[in-house]
Amino acid sequence: MDAVETILGRLTLEQKASLTSGGDFWHTQAVPEAGVPSVMVTDGPHGLRKQSDAGDAMGLGGSDPATCFPPAVTLGSTWDVGLARRVGEAIGAEALAAHVAVVLGPGVNIKRSPLCGRNFEYFSEDPLLSGRLGAAWVAGVQSRGVGTSLKHYAANNQETDRLRVSADVDERTLREVYLPAFEHIVRQEQPTTVMCAYNKLNGTHASEHHWLLTQVLRQEWGFAGMVVSDWGAVSNRVAALAAGLDLEMPPSGTDQQVVDAVHSGDLREEVLDEAVRRVLTLVAREQSLPEERPAVDPDAHHALAREVAAAGAVLLRNEAGLLPLDPDGTEALAVIGELARTPRYQGAGSSQVVPTRLDAALDAVRALAGDERVHFAPGYTLDGPADATLVDEAVETAREASTVVLFLGLPSSAESEGFDRQDIALPAGQLALLRAVRAVNERVVVVLANGGLVSVSGWEDQAEAVLEGWLGGQAGGSATADLLFGRANPSGRLTETIPLRLEDTPSWLFFPGGEQHVRYGEGIYVGYRYHHTLGDPVAHPFGFGLSYTTFDLADLVVHRTGPNAAEVSVTVTNTGPVAGSEVVQVYVHDRAASVDRPEHELKGFAKVPLEPGASGTARIPLAPEAFRFWSPGRGRWVVEAGEVEVRVGTSSADIHLVEVLDLEGDGVLPELAASSTLDEWFAHPVGGPVLRQALAEGGGRDLGEVDAHERAILGAMPLGKLSAFGLGVPRAAVDALVEQVRAER
Amino acid sequence: MDAVETILGRLTLEQKASLTSGGDFWHTQAVPEAGVPSVMVTDGPHGLRKQSDAGDAMGLGGSDPATCFPPAVTLGSTWDVGLARRVGEAIGAEALAAHVAVVLGPGVNIKRSPLCGRNFEYFSEDPLLSGRLGAAWVAGVQSRGVGTSLKHYAANNQETDRLRVSADVDERTLREVYLPAFEHIVRQEQPTTVMCAYNKLNGTHASEHHWLLTQVLRQEWGFAGMVVSDWGAVSNRVAALAAGLDLEMPPSGTDQQVVDAVHSGDLREEVLDEAVRRVLTLVAREQSLPEERPAVDPDAHHALAREVAAAGAVLLRNEAGLLPLDPDGTEALAVIGELARTPRYQGAGSSQVVPTRLDAALDAVRALAGDERVHFAPGYTLDGPADATLVDEAVETAREASTVVLFLGLPSSAESEGFDRQDIALPAGQLALLRAVRAVNERVVVVLANGGLVSVSGWEDQAEAVLEGWLGGQAGGSATADLLFGRANPSGRLTETIPLRLEDTPSWLFFPGGEQHVRYGEGIYVGYRYHHTLGDPVAHPFGFGLSYTTFDLADLVVHRTGPNAAEVSVTVTNTGPVAGSEVVQVYVHDRAASVDRPEHELKGFAKVPLEPGASGTARIPLAPEAFRFWSPGRGRWVVEAGEVEVRVGTSSADIHLVEVLDLEGDGVLPELAASSTLDEWFAHPVGGPVLRQALAEGGGRDLGEVDAHERAILGAMPLGKLSAFGLGVPRAAVDALVEQVRAER
Repeated sequence: MDAVETILGRLTLEQKASLTSGGDFWHTQAVPEAGVPSVMVTDGPHGLRKQSDAGDAMGLGGSDPATCFPPAVTLGSTWDVGLARRVGEAIGAEALAAHVAVVLGPGVNIKRSPLCGRNFEYFSEDPLLSGRLGAAWVAGVQSRGVGTSLKHYAANNQETDRLRVSADVDERTLREVYLPAFEHIVRQEQPTTVMCAYNKLNGTHASEHHWLLTQVLRQEWGFAGMVVSDWGAVSNRVAALAAGLDLEMPPSGTDQQVVDAVHSGDLREEVLDEAVRRVLTLVAREQSLPEERPAVDPDAHHALAREVAAAGAVLLRNEAGLLPLDPDGTEALAVIGELARTPRYQGAGSSQVVPTRLDAALDAVRALAGDERVHFAPGYTLDGPADATLVDEAVETAREASTVVLFLGLPSSAESEGFDRQDIALPAGQLALLRAVRAVNERVVVVLANGGLVSVSGWEDQAEAVLEGWLGGQAGGSATADLLFGRANPSGRLTETIPLRLEDTPSWLFFPGGEQHVRYGEGIYVGYRYHHTLGDPVAHPFGFGLSYTTFDLADLVVHRTGPNAAEVSVTVTNTGPVAGSEVVQVYVHDRAASVDRPEHELKGFAKVPLEPGASGTARIPLAPEAFRFWSPGRGRWVVEAGEVEVRVGTSSADIHLVEVLDLEGDGVLPELAASSTLDEWFAHPVGGPVLRQALAEGGGRDLGEVDAHERAILGAMPLGKLSAFGLGVPRAAVDALVEQVRAER
Repeated sequence: MDAVETILGRLTLEQKASLTSGGDFWHTQAVPEAGVPSVMVTDGPHGLRKQSDAGDAMGLGGSDPATCFPPAVTLGSTWDVGLARRVGEAIGAEALAAHVAVVLGPGVNIKRSPLCGRNFEYFSEDPLLSGRLGAAWVAGVQSRGVGTSLKHYAANNQETDRLRVSADVDERTLREVYLPAFEHIVRQEQPTTVMCAYNKLNGTHASEHHWLLTQVLRQEWGFAGMVVSDWGAVSNRVAALAAGLDLEMPPSGTDQQVVDAVHSGDLREEVLDEAVRRVLTLVAREQSLPEERPAVDPDAHHALAREVAAAGAVLLRNEAGLLPLDPDGTEALAVIGELARTPRYQGAGSSQVVPTRLDAALDAVRALAGDERVHFAPGYTLDGPADATLVDEAVETAREASTVVLFLGLPSSAESEGFDRQDIALPAGQLALLRAVRAVNERVVVVLANGGLVSVSGWEDQAEAVLEGWLGGQAGGSATADLLFGRANPSGRLTETIPLRLEDTPSWLFFPGGEQHVRYGEGIYVGYRYHHTLGDPVAHPFGFGLSYTTFDLADLVVHRTGPNAAEVSVTVTNTGPVAGSEVVQVYVHDRAASVDRPEHELKGFAKVPLEPGASGTARIPLAPEAFRFWSPGRGRWVVEAGEVEVRVGTSSADIHLVEVLDLEGDGVLPELAASSTLDEWFAHPVGGPVLRQALAEGGGRDLGEVDAHERAILGAMPLGKLSAFGLGVPRAAVDALVEQVRAER
């Protein structure tokens, strides 16, 4: 393929317009007469969904088999950036072999509500964790020469009315919660493409949002790649191009609108050229790869999928060390639940992969413990009504066993791309089964399979152990057996708070909105930011997860590395009997912010694997970004001088060590104006002396005459308004003072 | 005084400009050469604050004595519109006698947070209650020929940074929560003036807010009076005039700006003329009153103040009927607490009245029970540190007594116009005193004095009885004694929820904002609307209050009076031993709204006085307004067809009777467009058949082919986007369908 600029020079206006829309559902437009081939993109992000034929109407039909890794909910729960990178590398390798130019992922939208039907495709309620894991995944895929598509940009946090709904979000909330994962990945890894979301943001389609697609993404963050629409997200081709969208997918047959707009002057041709340039650059990138592609080892990828599934499972409860089970024991084990036999291992929608193979937990348990020990009863059907016969059979099986492993979870009909959930409860029939089983056997292990979180309130104490396996991918069944029998040690941690009640979640009053608007009323108080700031109890906090071993955290040192930066080091010791991994989490609490801030926020973490008795040091850098907040008034990030607490713990609620760090602040002085209050004037290093002198020189009544009560009221009054009350300096003198302060700074 | 139009015709531009600003702090501008006198306005609203001289700098200094009625917090708690009207009449009479043209009240801002320092001046967290009480007060004052000033318009719900802060409120929340009290009073009573607030609304000064001052206030609600600024609220004279503000107070010496703006064409002279016309109308109104004014009977007004204070006190707790005390008993009574001797009876700031006299509770208790029985100990000082000697003395006094009446409350330094509170706790020293007293005497009655609510968590169970007296006005002490000894029966009801914790209040995360913005994140979920929708527990619910007697509610009938209107009737019976009043409260719950709505909302109430054993029927009309919600998308109020529950009870949490009412709805069909979803098309009475026919005639793939899962996703897709996925009708045909639907409606 010729150089991009060469090709651009030979394209007609019509050809250029055609290149900014797809050739078909999965390909860019080819222009053979100009030497432009097409390239293929496919859905992701937890495996390749390459449709060999045109697919069905929705584009959701059959695809070529590919390794089905655990989706983001599970990968996220590993808190392991190394693992996220290795998954990216593997998916990149499969894409490369399949001649796929771009894998459409990662999805880094914030889990604003547990009800979002697509939460299984997202990492976390926390932007830092989402950004770190997404960046590692992007680095992995792109290390293989394959492109990525960072999605869904932005504020796509629900499925309800997703093609129309306007996410109404204030700028601070956007900057602090919904954009940082995108910002981090763009700045750190330059993803090949960014995919704009379906929804509107504050009334404007994301696909037509110039602030989002150009000002923030390109001008502030330096994104150099291509912006592609989510499939069907473009409403107005010309407005989208003008806003910074480069490629519409799938094609809508509206190229002529683009041509007309250039002719009429409504769209500058340079804008179109720039979009074409970016599309051609993407095509050229794929074309530059060798035609011969390395083969993929499906067994190795299956093993990796198993490793991820084991690392992402979260042990929520383990009374009296019921887990792990002894693989060499002889007592009977009851495995109950259809989900043990028929795994629920990924979510529904555009990310759905046809796996290369599929491990059921029942088979894996039998393989480890021996067929004779394991007695299975399905207990329920996945989508049918409760069945008394199945329950009776399960109870009898449980009664005869030493221990019951009960597989519960959401049926695939309960959650999907395309709609949101109505509640977070497990199916009532499954909970009835748990109670019935528990009545005859006190040693019950519950293994969960679900993409969005499920409530544990009202039933968790019925189980001696609870293992949240999320959606385990194609090797999830084997990973579950590994964990149950101690071949792997649970090291997953929650990436989202499990609330006591759905009503306790911060967006509950506002989700999913109505009349094509959803107001993000809770603002920056998402997930644990909300619960801890309010001091409200939760079922399990963000960052929580048990292990088969125990850990000790000690020797916290916060070493200053700059005026507003530090390195945190902490010694972690495995004080228990088996090898395992602890996730050290660093939260920052601002002791005296001038604005309201969450109780604390995750600003760094490290997963530390340790043999029994071994110690290691986790070193976690805190850049100035760790301390900043977004000031809408100043239109910039602000780091204030003053004390912050560096809190180190094993969940957002379990803080083990705290050190205070005194920040110098970014040193930017506030502007003073006639509208600045008396208190603001007096507190200002330049304005204070200026005003005091002016008052001493005799403007207006002496403020010393007023009593404390009046003084409190006066302090909050703008200087420019005091003279109307016979105080301060004359109104005409205020402007001169403002000028004087400006000059002296 | 000549007719307004006559005078207007003879005024120069300069004179006209001068009339739109005050003559001094409390007077309109006189233009003697044109025959325009000035009139006086004074602060209110719970009594007249007429400053005889220029006053001090803040305008907060001494004023002529006037009856100090209980402030709005107490008047509101009476839930008695008749009483509110009588207070208005009395204040109107005092103003008339004092030649005051306008009393600056009522304040009907919503208590968004219990922290607002000025909550004592406002009625309620509920807009309907605020509007009904405020309307009655306005009617009372204006019945005497004196003007009122409905304030502070609008969204002035905090004192922090009140001169600059922008209340960032979405329109639905404004329409449903923060504006309805203003709307009701304007439509019902035409207050003489409306006072614009200090703060900004969504970034624009209230004093310059055309939507607020002109579009909504005048064009929608039909306000015909004058708009005056809060004192110092004008930032830009010309912008304010253009927005609809008529009179700036106090004068800022900027008349020339107005003259210049007319000369330059920046301000149309008709706009200025209209403002002058409104000012002249106000002056003319006062001038039309007879010069001879009826005298005021201070004794009668004091008695009325006493009646209001008794009717507004809320009995929160009365275990084992400890109250009322026997006035004819002989056992010793301990009266403890400096507040018994030194009453806290009104709030601080512009509303502070110099009373004609002042009743202390201690004196009143002695008068009723006899000096010998009553043993007093101050227990604490109002603003000093805890004093062990005082505590010891109080404990000894309590030990010797049969019953302790302990007066607790907030010192005046704790709350005021001009700043907000930081917490809702009683002073720690007072609570320690309660514990110490309780340790020696189990019969403790707590009497509270506070303007903003105080928490009862952690101490309420230490008292056998709790009487919340709020701020009782100048006769509050006598009223308290009346209640303690059963000469009056408590009939006050909470106008705001008492939360378990400050953190439980809906605005807690957002109040009071920062950087000159406060985001009303909680939206429409203010007060009980929040707590009941979340199902969260509270200490005492909105509408709650005990009595010395008991009541029964029965025979609920919801009689339809229109397609979307009804009359509620319910029989109330006094089933206890003494006369008393019940407040019947009608809440409406929407069973199936298309938007999120609060669990229920107060839509009517009636206070029913009954002799023991007597029954009465409360009849409460529900107009269509009782069922409406504001639709921002449609830009109008909507009443939907469907079932609502009419819930009748004695608090927002104590619902006794429920009937279902089936509304016809306002009958306005939704508009269909290409962006309307498939589900919306199918559900539309006209669009459904049109689309079905088009599909039957063979446009696109049969939707019957898709499975239920795909159907759910498709249903949420805009019709205009389906063709890109090979479904529905061709994009080009959609516009024709839209036209067809429009034509057939």
